[in-house]
Amino acid sequence: MTGPRYTDLIAALPSTVPFVGPEAQERDRGAPFKARIGANENVFGPSPKAIAAMQQDSAEIWKYGDSTSYDLRHALAAHLGIGPQNVVVGEGIDGLLGYLVRLLVAPGDAVVTSDGAYPTFNFHVAGFGGVLHKVPYSGDSEDLPALIAKAAEVDAKLVYFANPDNPMASWTTGAAIEAALDTLPDGTLLALDEAYIEFAPADAIPRIAIEDPRVIRLRTFSKGYGMAGARVGYAFGAAPLIQSFDKIRNHFGMNRAAQAGALAALQDQDWLAHVVTQVAESKDRIARIAAANGLSALPSATNFVAVDCGRDGDFARKVLAALVARGIFVRMPFVAPQDRCIRISAGRAEEMEALAEALPLALADVAATA
Amino acid sequence: MTGPRYTDLIAALPSTVPFVGPEAQERDRGAPFKARIGANENVFGPSPKAIAAMQQDSAEIWKYGDSTSYDLRHALAAHLGIGPQNVVVGEGIDGLLGYLVRLLVAPGDAVVTSDGAYPTFNFHVAGFGGVLHKVPYSGDSEDLPALIAKAAEVDAKLVYFANPDNPMASWTTGAAIEAALDTLPDGTLLALDEAYIEFAPADAIPRIAIEDPRVIRLRTFSKGYGMAGARVGYAFGAAPLIQSFDKIRNHFGMNRAAQAGALAALQDQDWLAHVVTQVAESKDRIARIAAANGLSALPSATNFVAVDCGRDGDFARKVLAALVARGIFVRMPFVAPQDRCIRISAGRAEEMEALAEALPLALADVAATA
Repeated sequence: MTGPRYTDLIAALPSTVPFVGPEAQERDRGAPFKARIGANENVFGPSPKAIAAMQQDSAEIWKYGDSTSYDLRHALAAHLGIGPQNVVVGEGIDGLLGYLVRLLVAPGDAVVTSDGAYPTFNFHVAGFGGVLHKVPYSGDSEDLPALIAKAAEVDAKLVYFANPDNPMASWTTGAAIEAALDTLPDGTLLALDEAYIEFAPADAIPRIAIEDPRVIRLRTFSKGYGMAGARVGYAFGAAPLIQSFDKIRNHFGMNRAAQAGALAALQDQDWLAHVVTQVAESKDRIARIAAANGLSALPSATNFVAVDCGRDGDFARKVLAALVARGIFVRMPFVAPQDRCIRISAGRAEEMEALAEALPLALADVAATA
Repeated sequence: MTGPRYTDLIAALPSTVPFVGPEAQERDRGAPFKARIGANENVFGPSPKAIAAMQQDSAEIWKYGDSTSYDLRHALAAHLGIGPQNVVVGEGIDGLLGYLVRLLVAPGDAVVTSDGAYPTFNFHVAGFGGVLHKVPYSGDSEDLPALIAKAAEVDAKLVYFANPDNPMASWTTGAAIEAALDTLPDGTLLALDEAYIEFAPADAIPRIAIEDPRVIRLRTFSKGYGMAGARVGYAFGAAPLIQSFDKIRNHFGMNRAAQAGALAALQDQDWLAHVVTQVAESKDRIARIAAANGLSALPSATNFVAVDCGRDGDFARKVLAALVARGIFVRMPFVAPQDRCIRISAGRAEEMEALAEALPLALADVAATA
């Protein structure tokens, strides 16, 4: 018995996973984290109305969700001033990125992203046999002109660009994105990941005609709306592209309580504004904690802060490990020179207290072993 | 601007979807259904403990779910008497079937299923470029020996077999499956869809060594456990195959409240037994309603009944349409001769009352237009 015959593509794929979750780390260390501020979750949580909607719909969970996410999709369209045919709802941006890559990328096709940008996108590209071309950051920002130049060079079908950026929290103006679009090679699609857009300044949002065939934009209820565990993302763009998702998506893949929760969250923009204010205050607190320990916080247009540890990646990795050992769940950029930073998500007063207490001790731990 | 360049595979795919949901039908008809007994949902719902677990976890929805579904996966492993490395949790059987097809099926690869079996499996096979070979039912049952013979003939990488069957509710004994396995061609994987297994007689469950590389089994919380809208399925089999899902699955794709709900549902086997009894009573009621109207119910090992309308597919389609027009959501098999039947899911007393009232009127509607 030889067992199943995998495709050549699958047989060649490594078994790596994009991220190890905090629960796995907690099991390994045998203790829960004191502060869960490493996955850019929004600890302030969703609107109480969204929680109530999910709780209410839990009693209806015997029904499949609406396979077209009709109510949520129409509400999103109205919110964005576009048509319902221009929006597709999916299982988080992660799920939608998987579908998008599958739509465009056959084995050997070129795809461009920034070195150090979102690993889950890279996971999907590898998973469909795409050839990733990585462009360095410019300073601490993704370099859109360089990404586009690389796309022209390698004839890329797809370019990934996050605005605001993760893991550095930097941002590009909408005007710069609009200008760059006009240099995009014909037949290259720009995937504009706006997961953190609710935290960004208003001028970070480009004005792009919805039927412009050069761009697809991805947003989520995981960050600003505080519903990471619900798995609701959406993409919007030209109708033909959006409708092509129907050819492959898991039509009955949405959790129905999550659909109801996202709709309620969208309808409570006051709560979103309240959370954005709380996040801004927390980011100020992170900057003060960093400064008090001789570190510096980079400007942030997201719900997290890249804190520059002032030395190289080895040093930052030691600081990170020391923080984790002290019960503070944080992560950090993967590549130099951004790996001089650690990435800290905004939190409530209690998470900030835990961070303020642990950071000087973690730095002392590192100094003691140097 | 030419727009995005799809893969050749995607460009050739039709835009058909596997199923139109009842909400879409309700929007089209401008009124809600009186009885939602067409999608084999379990209207008796999940354990109250599962609902409570989901409601409680809704307040924690700001956190991503555990990407390894550790607690649920370990509980399932204990329940099944296998190792946690032998179980993968995913976004319903639909999601897991998509991953399974992607693991094995490259464009042009042969796949075997029954003509009239689960359309969503076919959707996934087409979506990855597989070549589907369909085998007729034998009587009203999927014909496992014929499926295996076809697999040998076309060198299939994958054979789909549901036990119990959908849409006919028939079943095969576990002993027959065990015997058939020994005739499976080397390198062909049997996907054994056991979505309805909780409703089946005990002897429908085959005894297969967990590390047997010839089979993967798929089960769900959508049917017996009454959580279709939560999107929790699981597959179990040999560890190397199960672990290969990690190469491609959406690691953070599970809704965390659904994970908690499924765990609580699994731990309440008394509720499951209670529901199975209620379903059996409802199926008896469906048979009596059918008989009272001159129709006959086929034996069922699931939570639904195939009701033989006694004539051809055109007649059954008219009966179906008349029932839908009268507010009874039901579906029916797609191919002859099984399309002489309509498929009715078990329901509470209220759904059965609505069915008992509507069926004679629907038959009169059809007679009046004949």
